[in-house]
Amino acid sequence: MTTNQQIHLVSRPNGEASVDNFKLMEVEVPELKDGQVLVRNHFMSLDPYMRGRMNDAKSYAVPQPLNAVMQGGTVGEVVASKNEHYKVGDKVVGFGGWQHYSVADAATPGVLRKVDTTHIPLSAYLGAVGMPGVTAWYGLTQICKPKAGQTIVVSAASGAVGSAVGQLAKARGCRAVGIAGGADKCGYVVSELGFDACVDYKAHKDSKSLYEALKAATPDGVDGCFENVGGAVFDAVLARMNAFGRIALCGMISGYDGEPIPLKNPQVLLQSRLTIEGFIVGEHMQFWPEALKELGTMVATGKLKYRESVAQGLAAAPEAFLGLLKGKNFGKQVVKLV
Amino acid sequence: MTTNQQIHLVSRPNGEASVDNFKLMEVEVPELKDGQVLVRNHFMSLDPYMRGRMNDAKSYAVPQPLNAVMQGGTVGEVVASKNEHYKVGDKVVGFGGWQHYSVADAATPGVLRKVDTTHIPLSAYLGAVGMPGVTAWYGLTQICKPKAGQTIVVSAASGAVGSAVGQLAKARGCRAVGIAGGADKCGYVVSELGFDACVDYKAHKDSKSLYEALKAATPDGVDGCFENVGGAVFDAVLARMNAFGRIALCGMISGYDGEPIPLKNPQVLLQSRLTIEGFIVGEHMQFWPEALKELGTMVATGKLKYRESVAQGLAAAPEAFLGLLKGKNFGKQVVKLV
Repeated sequence: MTTNQQIHLVSRPNGEASVDNFKLMEVEVPELKDGQVLVRNHFMSLDPYMRGRMNDAKSYAVPQPLNAVMQGGTVGEVVASKNEHYKVGDKVVGFGGWQHYSVADAATPGVLRKVDTTHIPLSAYLGAVGMPGVTAWYGLTQICKPKAGQTIVVSAASGAVGSAVGQLAKARGCRAVGIAGGADKCGYVVSELGFDACVDYKAHKDSKSLYEALKAATPDGVDGCFENVGGAVFDAVLARMNAFGRIALCGMISGYDGEPIPLKNPQVLLQSRLTIEGFIVGEHMQFWPEALKELGTMVATGKLKYRESVAQGLAAAPEAFLGLLKGKNFGKQVVKLV
Repeated sequence: MTTNQQIHLVSRPNGEASVDNFKLMEVEVPELKDGQVLVRNHFMSLDPYMRGRMNDAKSYAVPQPLNAVMQGGTVGEVVASKNEHYKVGDKVVGFGGWQHYSVADAATPGVLRKVDTTHIPLSAYLGAVGMPGVTAWYGLTQICKPKAGQTIVVSAASGAVGSAVGQLAKARGCRAVGIAGGADKCGYVVSELGFDACVDYKAHKDSKSLYEALKAATPDGVDGCFENVGGAVFDAVLARMNAFGRIALCGMISGYDGEPIPLKNPQVLLQSRLTIEGFIVGEHMQFWPEALKELGTMVATGKLKYRESVAQGLAAAPEAFLGLLKGKNFGKQVVKLV
């Protein structure tokens, strides 16, 4: 028998999440049944949406169960197989959770997908060529619907989703403007990722100052907004939207800990005839092949850059996850297990 | 020379609008130039959007100019014509403003339109078969996109727009639920207009009570929302929206007087993957013929009912307009001039 280590959710946060909500457990790996595959996870993905699922509240996903392994995306290698389509050594992306080994019902469509690591690093399938990349692609192309010459603003711009949004917008001839926290992140967004400008929201503590900085970065207003953050940052972007502007609402991380943060001036939605659309990329699977094709090609050819924050070892996951919620990561947050 | 009476906007509101913002003036009617038509206005339309235009703020329309006649929709009769397409006695709908006589540049497309009063009363062209009706039609059919069996909620349900929204929704096999202020209005919405239910927001002073009443009226949740009011009423509807619900944002009358009223829980937009679209019906002229055809047929055949609040005489317009902003009207607010 192989011993497996897992991290369970053992309590729900009351306000801010903490390491006490998690517990490292040891269990035995069960015997494989017919059709199943055993995967040694190499990287785990940490994503903001997990915070929402820690609450026992009505949302788009059922809550993360208590006293069960934390769910989440993983990439790894097949180490045992009772499924003819998978052999030992295959690299796979799946939803293995916060653990070293996961047993995958590989016969169920969508559970596991073989990936090619010739030109694309394995961990990228958790980021630029994975769920975050497709999230960026879907929200930008299907909701913001940018035209060349338009201005696209994205918050959390150095993150896994935001960095892809801006580079995809640039590839479509748009002006890409990021919003990120800190001079380091903003510098990276402009110099490395090629955005046209980036506003450091941490340098602007009041709403007027933030608005003025955003105004300077968006002289022609904003046509498309890809919103990952909510709160004061979103209020500022809304005030810069041009008529008929389009807003892809992807995340509102600023309100995840408890009381929702109100939208200060909803009248602007009417005054500027804006469209807001909230979306979850997993509900639009028909777009994934087209999105992954563009994202994979761009990563393989160096046209889509990304950065990773790599936490070392399973036990580091809770701390890394809490840091992600506070913006301490820089780029896609993963946990390296092997 | 004919003497004309007009109402001018002479000052902008600081907070709540008041009668002092308006002034009754007497001027001479100018000589007609070639192509022009002189219209004796029979009815003036009073509409909530006029309040927004009284402010000197960035909005979808240029502000109503100071010391000029209040702009607005009118129906009337041609009393003099230097345009071959219009003859004395023609009934017309136009944008004549708050005055007895208006000179229309009838050669300019869209300025004046002849209407048939055989089966449709003249004043209806300001309401159910005019801008408010088309507003209802556009927001419902093009934004809410209701399917038979779905639940549509509309605020200001006894008003010119709201009453049409619910009846158009019923004609499409939907459950129509109104929100209105007072037992009289709610009774009318259900018994006369045929809505399935109507929530009296004035009977529910706190948000929990309002939510519970709305929940009882929408046992299957809400699929489409036609929002005319904003504020607490909108917050309650948002909390009842089903996944992928669609919201036509037509008005936010509750915040017109000054400080915008925040949207309390914008996270619901993401959690329920909602779409909100703000719109101004004048920007979608291509839909007017189709909309007016359906609305006109329904009114002529008694299938679209409406009610009017009729103020008597030009001088009564400011008071009637301020009452409209407070919901004192019951149905479409017009001013009868003849």
